[in-house]
Amino acid sequence: MSASVNRRWLLAARPTGNLKDSDFELSPEPMPVPGEGEFVIKVTHLSFDPTQRGWIGGDTYLPAVKIGEVVRAGGAGEVVASNHPKFPVGTKVQGATGWQEYALSDGKGWWPTTAIHPGLTPEQALGIFGTTGLTAYFGLLDIGQPKAGDVVLVSGAAGATGSVVGQIAKAMGCTAIGIAGGKTKCDWVVETAGFDACIDYKSEPVAKRIRQLAPKGVNVVFENVGGDILDAALANLAQRARVVLCGGISSYNAASAAEMQGLKNYMQLTITRSRMEGFIVLDYAARFAEGVQALAKMMGEGKLKAIDDIQEGFENIPSTLRRLFEGKNFGKQLLKL
Amino acid sequence: MSASVNRRWLLAARPTGNLKDSDFELSPEPMPVPGEGEFVIKVTHLSFDPTQRGWIGGDTYLPAVKIGEVVRAGGAGEVVASNHPKFPVGTKVQGATGWQEYALSDGKGWWPTTAIHPGLTPEQALGIFGTTGLTAYFGLLDIGQPKAGDVVLVSGAAGATGSVVGQIAKAMGCTAIGIAGGKTKCDWVVETAGFDACIDYKSEPVAKRIRQLAPKGVNVVFENVGGDILDAALANLAQRARVVLCGGISSYNAASAAEMQGLKNYMQLTITRSRMEGFIVLDYAARFAEGVQALAKMMGEGKLKAIDDIQEGFENIPSTLRRLFEGKNFGKQLLKL
Repeated sequence: MSASVNRRWLLAARPTGNLKDSDFELSPEPMPVPGEGEFVIKVTHLSFDPTQRGWIGGDTYLPAVKIGEVVRAGGAGEVVASNHPKFPVGTKVQGATGWQEYALSDGKGWWPTTAIHPGLTPEQALGIFGTTGLTAYFGLLDIGQPKAGDVVLVSGAAGATGSVVGQIAKAMGCTAIGIAGGKTKCDWVVETAGFDACIDYKSEPVAKRIRQLAPKGVNVVFENVGGDILDAALANLAQRARVVLCGGISSYNAASAAEMQGLKNYMQLTITRSRMEGFIVLDYAARFAEGVQALAKMMGEGKLKAIDDIQEGFENIPSTLRRLFEGKNFGKQLLKL
Repeated sequence: MSASVNRRWLLAARPTGNLKDSDFELSPEPMPVPGEGEFVIKVTHLSFDPTQRGWIGGDTYLPAVKIGEVVRAGGAGEVVASNHPKFPVGTKVQGATGWQEYALSDGKGWWPTTAIHPGLTPEQALGIFGTTGLTAYFGLLDIGQPKAGDVVLVSGAAGATGSVVGQIAKAMGCTAIGIAGGKTKCDWVVETAGFDACIDYKSEPVAKRIRQLAPKGVNVVFENVGGDILDAALANLAQRARVVLCGGISSYNAASAAEMQGLKNYMQLTITRSRMEGFIVLDYAARFAEGVQALAKMMGEGKLKAIDDIQEGFENIPSTLRRLFEGKNFGKQLLKL
């Protein structure tokens, strides 16, 4: 431990609408010193996920990050000082490090720090074998329940979770149709992520294109976006379809419920006897090992690849979060400190 | 058969927005004569259900009623002429008679005519032991899956299905909270239908009242209304709640999707890991006998009563359908010809 200062990004204001520079504040503190049963992690990688916008916006499935607290985030790094027998200096770990260079941990809590499995890179631990890949796996299999031959529609298909969902769907013998913004992204979704087709919501009529690509309707919708795009999906459900509500990135930045794009086609759930269901990947913690094994098997068979978008530099942390909402990332958004 | 004319109400125009007199046209025809394997029913009772607004508005889970066709409706009556061995003259029957005095049937089709069980009145056959009671029973049990101690929230609680849902919920050991329009209706929901409480959406802040009555959230929502009322329910879900999408009477009359009240709080399904699911009672046809037995048992134990709202007169048929959307009916809406 040569540094004497720990740089941190704190939440400076409760964000409303689009994220602004003034929502965050750079604040150094003295280097943390581990007490009994504690250890210090030098953070090397941070994970960026749409759900973070919820955490700083208000209480959700977790209490909101408070003003003046380090911004909550998943991260990976190496133990550089330790008074904890299970986490000696040199251990590679992942956990809720937050937006800071050094994180103090006792290995406990709602998001415990864990050692990274030997043989995995920090990028893999945070991405394809982390909550991103596991969200895709458990959301698609447990909630979406696809069968071979089903049509699986994935919004946010160029995003971290969406691009994995499509690959798993293809590995299961389904047709995977993506929705993404712009030709570059759509080309990437088909050519790199391997979807059968991709609809560009910025230049194509989404509902009409879904109807063309899936004239018998879609059996599973993996919903990362919400708003108009979810309405277009609801208008094209097959009988007894399953809509997996993973996120709603189009509405995370809405300043208030009154500003939110309301869902108009929800009664299609009745007409088609379909179901729309939400889930939180952390609920599957007890089954994470099962998910990692299944994903590793697909990867070993060449059916799944990790696709990362890696930014660099501590000072670029807030702007990297904004990339998610500006539609800039391809695959899993990470940052290397 | 003394009459020589069969009076019928035909669909005169595709309705948009609120139903109007000009949407229907009174049109007599010569009395139908049964061919081989056919019989004629003298219609004595008609059933009025919110889903009829869908049938005349456009294609839904059934093809739309065509302009110039008899308006589709469930009804009951007595066979007055027959060339069908299983339906001799004098048989009491129910089926899709439509809005007419005499209906020709062959006992087949998607909604087959069936004999009314001996001992049941036509009102019971169309209401509590008909699709109304069965919708409440299968929707609540199969989709809502309530457990003793759960809080069950029912919108349209003074309506035919809603008032039965609350009674079944109470019989199962749940707390039943209703939502209805106006003090008279709310009093009726508590005093006559036996709910624990009822929220008057015309004079009370619905979301706030739900929170007061169910501070831990609601486990089951039986949704008959849609729009703002469903949003208020979504804002108050317990973890892993089930939202049964039975109807959306508040939006049936919307002239177009653009005019519809969008749903804003659907992401609460993710935050609470909940599910919203639609169903169509006709899918349960193979299990109707099971449902009727269960309902009859509850009735025999004094836990369930049939509550009917009976109008009279052939000429009043269109205005009786409007009663549903004007919030006028208490319990099951029927009309005696």
